[in-house]
Amino acid sequence: MNSAVLLISCPDKPGIVAAVATWIASVGGNIVHAEQHTDTTDAMFFQRVEFQYNDSTSLATLTAGFTSVATNWDMHFTLNPIPRRARTAVLCSKQLHCVADLLSRTTYGDLGLDIAAVVSNHTDAQPLAQSFDLAFHHVPVGDGTNARAQQEARVAELLDTLNVDLVVLARYMLVLPPSLVQPWSGRMINIHHSFLPAFIGANPYRQAHDRGVKVIGATAHYVSDVLDEGPIIAQDVTAVTHRDDVADLTRKGRDLETVVLARAVRAHVEHKVLTFGNRTVVFG
Amino acid sequence: MNSAVLLISCPDKPGIVAAVATWIASVGGNIVHAEQHTDTTDAMFFQRVEFQYNDSTSLATLTAGFTSVATNWDMHFTLNPIPRRARTAVLCSKQLHCVADLLSRTTYGDLGLDIAAVVSNHTDAQPLAQSFDLAFHHVPVGDGTNARAQQEARVAELLDTLNVDLVVLARYMLVLPPSLVQPWSGRMINIHHSFLPAFIGANPYRQAHDRGVKVIGATAHYVSDVLDEGPIIAQDVTAVTHRDDVADLTRKGRDLETVVLARAVRAHVEHKVLTFGNRTVVFG
Amino acid sequence: MNSAVLLISCPDKPGIVAAVATWIASVGGNIVHAEQHTDTTDAMFFQRVEFQYNDSTSLATLTAGFTSVATNWDMHFTLNPIPRRARTAVLCSKQLHCVADLLSRTTYGDLGLDIAAVVSNHTDAQPLAQSFDLAFHHVPVGDGTNARAQQEARVAELLDTLNVDLVVLARYMLVLPPSLVQPWSGRMINIHHSFLPAFIGANPYRQAHDRGVKVIGATAHYVSDVLDEGPIIAQDVTAVTHRDDVADLTRKGRDLETVVLARAVRAHVEHKVLTFGNRTVVFG
Amino acid sequence: MNSAVLLISCPDKPGIVAAVATWIASVGGNIVHAEQHTDTTDAMFFQRVEFQYNDSTSLATLTAGFTSVATNWDMHFTLNPIPRRARTAVLCSKQLHCVADLLSRTTYGDLGLDIAAVVSNHTDAQPLAQSFDLAFHHVPVGDGTNARAQQEARVAELLDTLNVDLVVLARYMLVLPPSLVQPWSGRMINIHHSFLPAFIGANPYRQAHDRGVKVIGATAHYVSDVLDEGPIIAQDVTAVTHRDDVADLTRKGRDLETVVLARAVRAHVEHKVLTFGNRTVVFG
Repeated sequence: MNSAVLLISCPDKPGIVAAVATWIASVGGNIVHAEQHTDTTDAMFFQRVEFQYNDSTSLATLTAGFTSVATNWDMHFTLNPIPRRARTAVLCSKQLHCVADLLSRTTYGDLGLDIAAVVSNHTDAQPLAQSFDLAFHHVPVGDGTNARAQQEARVAELLDTLNVDLVVLARYMLVLPPSLVQPWSGRMINIHHSFLPAFIGANPYRQAHDRGVKVIGATAHYVSDVLDEGPIIAQDVTAVTHRDDVADLTRKGRDLETVVLARAVRAHVEHKVLTFGNRTVVFG
Repeated sequence: MNSAVLLISCPDKPGIVAAVATWIASVGGNIVHAEQHTDTTDAMFFQRVEFQYNDSTSLATLTAGFTSVATNWDMHFTLNPIPRRARTAVLCSKQLHCVADLLSRTTYGDLGLDIAAVVSNHTDAQPLAQSFDLAFHHVPVGDGTNARAQQEARVAELLDTLNVDLVVLARYMLVLPPSLVQPWSGRMINIHHSFLPAFIGANPYRQAHDRGVKVIGATAHYVSDVLDEGPIIAQDVTAVTHRDDVADLTRKGRDLETVVLARAVRAHVEHKVLTFGNRTVVFG
Repeated sequence: MNSAVLLISCPDKPGIVAAVATWIASVGGNIVHAEQHTDTTDAMFFQRVEFQYNDSTSLATLTAGFTSVATNWDMHFTLNPIPRRARTAVLCSKQLHCVADLLSRTTYGDLGLDIAAVVSNHTDAQPLAQSFDLAFHHVPVGDGTNARAQQEARVAELLDTLNVDLVVLARYMLVLPPSLVQPWSGRMINIHHSFLPAFIGANPYRQAHDRGVKVIGATAHYVSDVLDEGPIIAQDVTAVTHRDDVADLTRKGRDLETVVLARAVRAHVEHKVLTFGNRTVVFG
Repeated sequence: MNSAVLLISCPDKPGIVAAVATWIASVGGNIVHAEQHTDTTDAMFFQRVEFQYNDSTSLATLTAGFTSVATNWDMHFTLNPIPRRARTAVLCSKQLHCVADLLSRTTYGDLGLDIAAVVSNHTDAQPLAQSFDLAFHHVPVGDGTNARAQQEARVAELLDTLNVDLVVLARYMLVLPPSLVQPWSGRMINIHHSFLPAFIGANPYRQAHDRGVKVIGATAHYVSDVLDEGPIIAQDVTAVTHRDDVADLTRKGRDLETVVLARAVRAHVEHKVLTFGNRTVVFG
């Protein structure tokens, strides 16, 4: 038997659960695990169904088969074979804690990633990538009026060439243009070092210090066209005091960033995240 | 022996601690507890000193005596007798959890308040105030073009008449004008139902829901001229999920609001808070 | 239409969800909300179903009707009309923060309780009960060899007379004998001031201080025959440091105790808790 | 100028702070940072003083000089040059998340360690150590009646040979005998995967699951003769629900373990931890 995860979102109506279950039974499938959520505010239904199916059936056949169900119920859906490691590009800059953590977790089996390459506008991460036997691509911003656009074009081309399922911005400090973001909608995860929507943009720890907050946070979100505005997948915070200067906040925040980013990446690669407008459903 | 708390803030220079200790010794005082903080970012020094002094000495004499030390070191200071219950006005509207909590805590001895009155633009809190044998003042917003200004004037006059040390806005839902805020600078504490600076203004739980955050928070702060911008005294947060609609966020937030407000009020009445620009030092 | 909550636990088998849904449909019921949990470790199934039914049908009839379904599937179940306020006795001793908090929450509508009486072995809570217009019963431990047993007998008789649905031990500091606990199995909730199973028994904050822990906690649980061993409904913790002496831990712990107890009581009265051996399923 | 950290503990008496400051001035030292704590329960005084001194003075001279102050005040003290990376041996078994995290943090500069070797009774960590260009020592438990004692003797000898300042048990799953623990008193840190004192010993996540707790935790502590009883340096917890089986608790606990262990190791290597009986003072 093979296994797959079906992720569904659609307007809420009576009978959806039965319709999905009936279809799975009709293809000889066996439901292993199912979770659902009804958003009463917007009358939307979300479901994650993990099921086994006969290995003589192809996933393409299943996908074609479910399409008519989906059409009937006005569903968005994805059908994903499991287990399959997500082929991933990790982008970073000079701060290495997030990329190092992702590489470690992948190595000791905490995250089901197949890291295709580490990509950076700096060379700081190169030794780290090498120590894990990973390809490293240095894509610096050069000089000249078009330097930034040229760098963005090179990154875009590189991501295409790498043929990845997922792009993780692990403290990549260059803002991406819409042309680079849109092709990766729902497949590009960023870690922002504040509890969004507070402290959007640059230097959030300095902003937090100057505002005198008593908690700092980190937010992992899908990247959208608008800076730091995409759907939030995971957030966490930690208490701070007046004794914490910007360097202390930065250090304490690192542990938040690594854990929150890893949590979001895991939820994504285990097909537990559905987006809905600017919000997410993250199954447990 | 009597007891007092000296709160000091001044530019950081070598010798401050010794100067304060020498002065206390010179008046026959005995330091019971001292805490200090140096803000290296802005080169500022903060200290809280609890000391005993001979009960033949008046606090006015001590205050006069310390003024010359303060002048030499360019200090702001307050000298506060302890224990003394803070005479307090509690303002609220229709939501009663914060006012009920403050009244309960005062009753069972958790907060050193002497509640002079509960004041509200609605009557919902009246039975609660009465059950605790407290004065209740209903100051509604009437009709007419000047209704709001008239109500504000009545509140301002009432606070003056009540002769309180502290004003607590326990989910008082009317924005106060600068004329009402300024006389109470550093003595008026508000609870805002978000982790500021996120979700300033009205309906923060709805804002939080619409943004799809995974944590909600509450913030207690001194009130300043700018809405929700005053120095933060205490903050806390709790995790939420996609399953929480606005009503759930509101219910979960209530526990945060009561605890965070009580924590801030306690720190204030125990003379543990110093403000510095828009930030606070909150000693433990 | 009337509403009810059906709570089910049984060995996990295929078809349970359908059997329950079919029965509800057969009595003209309409499912408003359903949550379920399968404990794979012990192969047990748990479900909470909130449904509406025709108000010409009595709950007794429904209960009788569902009994055959329950027998077929080897189910434990309860069928509870909603909304109905739980008639509750609150027991306390000298510490008043938990009882004060429960009374406040009931007053401002946060908890669906109908408090029948406050019962205590001390008189400290009497003024508080009176301020909320509640009956207060003082059941002190007298002198003599049988004093404790006599007091327990009086409490047992009082609880019977009060005809309550729920008993809340809100920092009631006398250990109850099995004879008093057993009749209230699953209907008596205690708050213990530690994160159980750490620091069972007396003076947990002193125990925590002496062990030098960096977090303290509170635990709300159903009372069982064995001290502090019953099924845990809710727990929470807060960070502490070496600066916190026993008095500090006690003060910080109070906020945990009130919030955790209230959370557990709310889950219970909303029929969201199922017990299973010494564990609980607490639906969200 | 050189820098050093002086760590002091002694019975609390008036004049200690002045005595220490006077001595530092007498050797031409300049206090950069000082923190102190008075434990009122046991009348003990603790201080951490970071100071600069003339680089023509040797640390040995300073240590000899301070000894007479220490004798006068009945002090325990250590005088530690900073910055100096702590030469460290990391012991692990089959679980690699803690060792991987320590290696990553060391690499990207979050922890001031100089890792002398990774030591394990299994070979799982060997590739990881190699990827970071670190020595790896496999010290398995062999067969035969004395196998365990022989393995312990080899580990003891290896730690001596490595000439380390610190031993970190990063999920090393063999209980160490007192003969191996005692030489490293105050210099050997273990991570235990529960919030001690709950769930001492083997399989704490299973114990936690069986007890039905709603929070799980991790504890970093100095190792003492009694299993899981040494002074606690850091603890943290996370919420769990009935939906978390033992595997889920184990996965969620990993993030706690890595962060709590790193926090404890950092505090130790920055000379911020003082032990006192079975408790610790951990300066901020």
